[in-house]
Amino acid sequence: MRNPPTLLSLAIDSAVINFCRISDLSFVPEHILLELFVRTLKAGKLNEKILKLFIATGKEEILSVIESLNIQHILVPVLPTLIIKDDEVDIVIGALQSDLTSFMEAWRPMFSRFHLIIVKDPDLKEELKVPGGFNLNLYTKSDMDKVVDSSSSTISFSGYSCRYFGYLMSRKKYIISIDDDCIPAKDSKGELIDAVAQHITNLTTPATPFFFNTLYDPFSEGTDFVRGYPFSLRSGVECGLSCGLWLNLADYDAPTQALKPSARNSRYVDAVLTVPARTMLPLSGINIAFNNELVGPTLLPAFRLAKEGKFRWETVEDIWTGMCAKVVCDHLRLGVKSGLPYVWRQERGNAVESLKKEWEGVQLMEEVVPFFQSVRLSEAAVTAEDCIAEIAASVKEQLGRSNPMFARAAENMVEWIKLWKQVRSL
Amino acid sequence: MRNPPTLLSLAIDSAVINFCRISDLSFVPEHILLELFVRTLKAGKLNEKILKLFIATGKEEILSVIESLNIQHILVPVLPTLIIKDDEVDIVIGALQSDLTSFMEAWRPMFSRFHLIIVKDPDLKEELKVPGGFNLNLYTKSDMDKVVDSSSSTISFSGYSCRYFGYLMSRKKYIISIDDDCIPAKDSKGELIDAVAQHITNLTTPATPFFFNTLYDPFSEGTDFVRGYPFSLRSGVECGLSCGLWLNLADYDAPTQALKPSARNSRYVDAVLTVPARTMLPLSGINIAFNNELVGPTLLPAFRLAKEGKFRWETVEDIWTGMCAKVVCDHLRLGVKSGLPYVWRQERGNAVESLKKEWEGVQLMEEVVPFFQSVRLSEAAVTAEDCIAEIAASVKEQLGRSNPMFARAAENMVEWIKLWKQVRSL
Repeated sequence: MRNPPTLLSLAIDSAVINFCRISDLSFVPEHILLELFVRTLKAGKLNEKILKLFIATGKEEILSVIESLNIQHILVPVLPTLIIKDDEVDIVIGALQSDLTSFMEAWRPMFSRFHLIIVKDPDLKEELKVPGGFNLNLYTKSDMDKVVDSSSSTISFSGYSCRYFGYLMSRKKYIISIDDDCIPAKDSKGELIDAVAQHITNLTTPATPFFFNTLYDPFSEGTDFVRGYPFSLRSGVECGLSCGLWLNLADYDAPTQALKPSARNSRYVDAVLTVPARTMLPLSGINIAFNNELVGPTLLPAFRLAKEGKFRWETVEDIWTGMCAKVVCDHLRLGVKSGLPYVWRQERGNAVESLKKEWEGVQLMEEVVPFFQSVRLSEAAVTAEDCIAEIAASVKEQLGRSNPMFARAAENMVEWIKLWKQVRSL
Repeated sequence: MRNPPTLLSLAIDSAVINFCRISDLSFVPEHILLELFVRTLKAGKLNEKILKLFIATGKEEILSVIESLNIQHILVPVLPTLIIKDDEVDIVIGALQSDLTSFMEAWRPMFSRFHLIIVKDPDLKEELKVPGGFNLNLYTKSDMDKVVDSSSSTISFSGYSCRYFGYLMSRKKYIISIDDDCIPAKDSKGELIDAVAQHITNLTTPATPFFFNTLYDPFSEGTDFVRGYPFSLRSGVECGLSCGLWLNLADYDAPTQALKPSARNSRYVDAVLTVPARTMLPLSGINIAFNNELVGPTLLPAFRLAKEGKFRWETVEDIWTGMCAKVVCDHLRLGVKSGLPYVWRQERGNAVESLKKEWEGVQLMEEVVPFFQSVRLSEAAVTAEDCIAEIAASVKEQLGRSNPMFARAAENMVEWIKLWKQVRSL
């Protein structure tokens, strides 16, 4: 039989959880401080602020442990970065697999500071396994049914679309979302990449959609605007959307993946760039972040293939949503960034099997892309909601007759805006 | 006194120079073969084809030397790359300094296979020092005077503009041009970068200006089009212009360089991308290549600051020319790529001193950029020459009144097209 925990041990656990309220550790005896430090580390809670608290104690043993582990202060670059608080961020995870243990443990060092929203795919029958030690809300089908009347609504949250329920329920300014088959990647020096921190940097530094900077993101450390870049455009605009990338399994469509089954992405490109205004891109929903206040309603579950599956290459919902978001960002003079951070995508599925389903998505893109390239919004559209309503009307008018799937997408977009406003009015 | 060279030695020298005519080495005695191999290496002439000749001899000593030096075959990727011949390329160097020895020696391994055009800045008084062993044409002020009547022409080839005389005289399909203060850079693995080979790859693989690929150039080794990229756009278009980048001294303007005197670019971004259609960029003339048949006449010496100097940050001629080329490429449905290859820029000049001159360029960009962003060409413009004539007319009409410099630029553009046609009609 295990001994019950000591009072000291419980007190330390409680301190680790409530670190945000602690502003001084100098009164804590050294041996307790050491134990607290070790447990903080294990819990993945050591951040810049907490490290400073430990260093401020001046206790020799603590300082030598910090030194021996080679824990270093992160140099904060002098850039026009907004400082954001941890509680301004929601990390939204769509659970398409029932056991999230290895996924969550891999991300613990990056996720544990933030609030998480986990949304279980309503098609998933097994009970969800989520490890402890996270601050999270879990949403399942019953929560969806309370918000959306499935008898009258056309909106579906099944498969990858489950994450949109998390977007709907979040009240935070920034949302970060990563597929549950991805773990942290390593950079070219072999160091683990903090995808959350990089997304926050992307969202909180300006974007430059109106002129291309050949040295990529001028707000990255060690770079700047190249000679010839107009000064009047250097302050940039707010960033609405940050699209991260993937190492290992790249996000190819089923035909490409079937044709090149051994193709893996190993090229680490150390850059972020603003996708220029009026340029469309294939947004991949695998690893994204957005400013929920600015563009929240544009990330929506509107476009569902008849044979949509549970692998990314069997879906195009994120591609559609990405082009909606890009058109809205262009119209509202906001930026969309692409590049860092990378995540590591693990192997899943059989591309040849998926070919049956995915051809439909491939064919539809031939109509979808020219539509989004040419759609223009009126000056009356001043919010993301207005913009989506106008895009929905154009989809219905210009694409609706060619394929009933487009008409349904237009309906879903209108429905989504209603739902979005309704949830926010509660 | 040195001994005169032996007949054998002279024969080997001659063989090195005339390797293109040799198709078999198997009859050469082994000790001569070894000497030939060493001299070929020293002359920087060992290429894939010559290496194969040596290997085909099957001589053990040769094979072991090749092995001991770890000389390896370059794997040619299976990509839609046009195979081009060495004699389709001109490397054009504008000489702004009189001693090109260290510049040329640094580039010998990359340059020696190709024909070079060296153009001496007409303002440079000292005699030009160029090392031997290159196949080159050297142009000086007297050559310019033969082609351009300086009493009637407004075109000036002084300073960085001297290279345009080389573009004018070249009859090759591809032109590569690198500033004489740059040497080969190293990639992130510490290997020397062959900027010439990378530029040729950029120019001979398709460009994709009509939709953004989040994994950068889909024709690079190990990458492809991302899910959602329309298949109808995947064949791409021809590439007109390849803009390389710079490590160490970045191409900032004088104010930025003066503000951050110690700023150096150390970020090696392993990517090439097509700059999207209708997106303007600040072309830097430091390290470029272009398809002379497609866009040759668009690289032109039109825009000269009143106080233009001999440092890059004192000029904007290349920025102007780059926007002309981009507008023409967009109109003719050609691509402009930016990214790899990097060159290493060495230190020169004093940015604070240059501030007096460069403010003018900085101010003018505020008018230049919106002009090029909005200029549209007629369907009647089907060649680069037509396009430049239309742009010149718009410059005169829309910008000409605000500053005499713009009116002069328009005149220079018209003049350049005349000159271009005249030289080609000889």
